[in-house]
Amino acid sequence: MFQLHERLLADTVLIGEFPLSLVLLSKDANYPWVILVPARAGVKEIYQLDQEDRLQLLHESCLVAEAMEALFKPHKLNIATIGNVVPQLHMHHVARLETDAAWPGPVWGAVPALQYSGNVLDDLVADIRDSLPSLVMSSK
Amino acid sequence: MFQLHERLLADTVLIGEFPLSLVLLSKDANYPWVILVPARAGVKEIYQLDQEDRLQLLHESCLVAEAMEALFKPHKLNIATIGNVVPQLHMHHVARLETDAAWPGPVWGAVPALQYSGNVLDDLVADIRDSLPSLVMSSK
Repeated sequence: MFQLHERLLADTVLIGEFPLSLVLLSKDANYPWVILVPARAGVKEIYQLDQEDRLQLLHESCLVAEAMEALFKPHKLNIATIGNVVPQLHMHHVARLETDAAWPGPVWGAVPALQYSGNVLDDLVADIRDSLPSLVMSSK
Repeated sequence: MFQLHERLLADTVLIGEFPLSLVLLSKDANYPWVILVPARAGVKEIYQLDQEDRLQLLHESCLVAEAMEALFKPHKLNIATIGNVVPQLHMHHVARLETDAAWPGPVWGAVPALQYSGNVLDDLVADIRDSLPSLVMSSK
């Protein structure tokens, strides 16, 4: 049975759910950072998904990318499945600005995570939800 | 007109061509590292490809991932479109081992590139070609 990896659970808040994936926002305030986690147990790599799930993940990823492009006007999006530490398949979407803490390097391991202050995190979740009309709100 | 970015040209050798993408091998001997570059001009992000190209890129990426899995038996594949330095859309596929130079961190900027010795690079290109029967050999 699919269960979100404890590390992802600890480091993110839930934005909502697509048909395939949980949509999570990283608590690291250094960068707008959305993570898709396909709700499939025991999958580490995209190619291990069946064809229908592969296409759905691509579709959900592009929806997130377009929403982040519109919301954050990034210089570049960084989209990646890495998973060296957390093997459960999860796809990072990071909106990168030339003024951010790690630019132009990758974000993983670059600088310590920064906490969102006040209700910035809640506002961000609301903004992303508004940009993803096909998202289902989770009751969890 | 599509033209491979000079940085990618300098840092890789051509393995062959899929219907959409050039298939390149990084000259960095630290990790088996294949890069797909969709032959489309002016594209920075996956979502900017039309639907047909998106699906083709996903298909080509999964072929590369499965071939690398079989060839290198990695602990994890790292698949990413980053492009902070080279904006031309290119998708990294890196076979990661727990014994490699950057594990468990990401490979980008981790350690200086290492040169392949003797004909190891040529042998590797041949092995990857053999694992990707749908690849077209380039005459370039």
